Amino acid sequence: MKVDGIHYRTIWPSADGRGVEIIDQTQLPHRFATVRLDSAADAAHAIRAMLVRGAPLIGATAAYGLWLALRDDPSDAALSRAAEMLVATRPTAINLKWAVERVGEAVRQRPLEARAAAAFAAAGALCDEDVEINHAIGTHGLELIRQAHAAKSDGAPVNVLTHCNAGWLATVDWGTALAPIYLAHDAGIPVHVWVDETRPRNQGAGLTAWELGRHGVPHTVIVDNAGGLLMRRGQVDLCITGTDRTTAAGDVCNKIGTYLKALAAHDAGVPFHVALPGPTIDWSLEDGERIPIEERDAREVTHLTGQTDDGRIETVRVTPPDSPAANYGFDVTPARLVTGLITERGVCAASRAGLAGLYPERAAQAAE
Amino acid sequence: MKVDGIHYRTIWPSADGRGVEIIDQTQLPHRFATVRLDSAADAAHAIRAMLVRGAPLIGATAAYGLWLALRDDPSDAALSRAAEMLVATRPTAINLKWAVERVGEAVRQRPLEARAAAAFAAAGALCDEDVEINHAIGTHGLELIRQAHAAKSDGAPVNVLTHCNAGWLATVDWGTALAPIYLAHDAGIPVHVWVDETRPRNQGAGLTAWELGRHGVPHTVIVDNAGGLLMRRGQVDLCITGTDRTTAAGDVCNKIGTYLKALAAHDAGVPFHVALPGPTIDWSLEDGERIPIEERDAREVTHLTGQTDDGRIETVRVTPPDSPAANYGFDVTPARLVTGLITERGVCAASRAGLAGLYPERAAQAAE
Repeated sequence: MKVDGIHYRTIWPSADGRGVEIIDQTQLPHRFATVRLDSAADAAHAIRAMLVRGAPLIGATAAYGLWLALRDDPSDAALSRAAEMLVATRPTAINLKWAVERVGEAVRQRPLEARAAAAFAAAGALCDEDVEINHAIGTHGLELIRQAHAAKSDGAPVNVLTHCNAGWLATVDWGTALAPIYLAHDAGIPVHVWVDETRPRNQGAGLTAWELGRHGVPHTVIVDNAGGLLMRRGQVDLCITGTDRTTAAGDVCNKIGTYLKALAAHDAGVPFHVALPGPTIDWSLEDGERIPIEERDAREVTHLTGQTDDGRIETVRVTPPDSPAANYGFDVTPARLVTGLITERGVCAASRAGLAGLYPERAAQAAE
Repeated sequence: MKVDGIHYRTIWPSADGRGVEIIDQTQLPHRFATVRLDSAADAAHAIRAMLVRGAPLIGATAAYGLWLALRDDPSDAALSRAAEMLVATRPTAINLKWAVERVGEAVRQRPLEARAAAAFAAAGALCDEDVEINHAIGTHGLELIRQAHAAKSDGAPVNVLTHCNAGWLATVDWGTALAPIYLAHDAGIPVHVWVDETRPRNQGAGLTAWELGRHGVPHTVIVDNAGGLLMRRGQVDLCITGTDRTTAAGDVCNKIGTYLKALAAHDAGVPFHVALPGPTIDWSLEDGERIPIEERDAREVTHLTGQTDDGRIETVRVTPPDSPAANYGFDVTPARLVTGLITERGVCAASRAGLAGLYPERAAQAAE
């Protein structure tokens, strides 16, 4: 999407063809800085230190990391070493393993001198595919926004509430939950986004607000506590969030707090949609309550980083030093609270039947 | 309650009898500092700059402020001037006006030389009454915690979730929502509190965690997003919050986000109780949706204050500088989501009948 008029992806080969460039997301929203990755070790560090985050982008970064490794040393041993290092950076991210395996398969049968070029092509294809999937999610979600706008007699903007960051910064481009919003905005449908700040880590306040602002999409940051009031007052037309994993029955695991917004939407009769690429459906699981919930460093709750009025970046503690904190990363929204799933193949009900209708081949496979 | 072994109220006459002392709550949780008020202007400043906050404590501070004014000049003109200045500090706080009027009535008919002493006595009585009301709320709420503990076969701690600060720092002592917790802890019933950090303003992370910690009550700070997951996983036995205004039908207006916790509690079958002093019931209103919701400075959303690792207090911005933010102070929890109201007269259903059973004289008055 655009950053002040210039189109960016989150990852791209550098102009000299010798490296890869990324946006250093740890510095957002305070500074827009790009970083050049010249080796597999650079790529691993970028993932580990969260310069890049979001499952699709992590996968893309690892794919290019493998290219950088093979360019320096195309041997089987180097391939294995690099793959192992890259996969170990964020062991829970499914996409990462999948991307590394995919590039590995693309090069393994080739002669040594052709491996780097094959890896480069595979990484590029993986990125293009992510962009294509997200754009398709966007076109299907766009219809929901278009309908919401048509239902308004006064032509007022469609108010969409989102939680966390499922925008282009989490993917290669477009994002998942935000793709319909960008397409609506670009198509001239007036849209306004309520951005949950999304504690802890503040991906809403720091990333979603930043990327919407840079592309020129009207938005307002709110605390995570505010959505219920807004929905009861009719100030939200629909909710769209992303997801980290969706079960075969349509339960949705996403950033902590998503469930509370789904409850409020249900109580107020506001449609609650979840945008997802097909690969994040876990066909092996029905009941979302069985998804293990990652518990993260309490410091993400007790400490916050931001910018002082005179421009310094500071990290401050907001709790008493002797008060313990707990930090659960995700919660599960039961399918009964989800109005629809927006996928690259269309919108379906959050149910086994709904998903099987769009992905018959996957559902059949899983049933075997 | 206790601060590291020493018993404090939030406001008390100084030892020399010439002033009033308060805890500077703007410095919590990072520094415990008391401040001396020597004039009505000092009292007005303490309220305006939020060194003291919480309706009962604001009222008590204004009452003592009137004493300080009359000690310097007991004339009718001085009394009016001071009353006007004190009431103007936080124009929306009902308690403030009530406290100032009450002290005014106690002195107006007296000779000039007796006025200061009468005001001092009236302020002291008002404080003692607040403590008594809160203690009574505590004894009734204690029974709910006792029952929850008895229902556990393993003697494990009772897990209470609370939102915002309805503790002793918001009152003269004991608090409202936290009074049952302090009484349970002091009675040897094991209790553990999940403290919502309570964005914006972080009264949970900054004040509730601090006061529980100082009194020695086990607690864990969580982000406001986490409560839904905890309730679904059976990690919350009951919720207790305070309220700023309760309608005659039992709708509860409280700090933004309370409604989301009530929805989650309802969905998970967790009891959701609200603690309130009788005077915060608005007998003139049935429908909570008609309560006007205060919109506050967006800076409370975009900026946060905390302490750096090397001890400096810094305020940082967490949003992009050009992203607007909205800051709604309260939301309304409909009575249907409230299990019970804990008052100084006992626990009742959140309904007109429930409240009328405990406050028959008020209900009859309101019906006239």
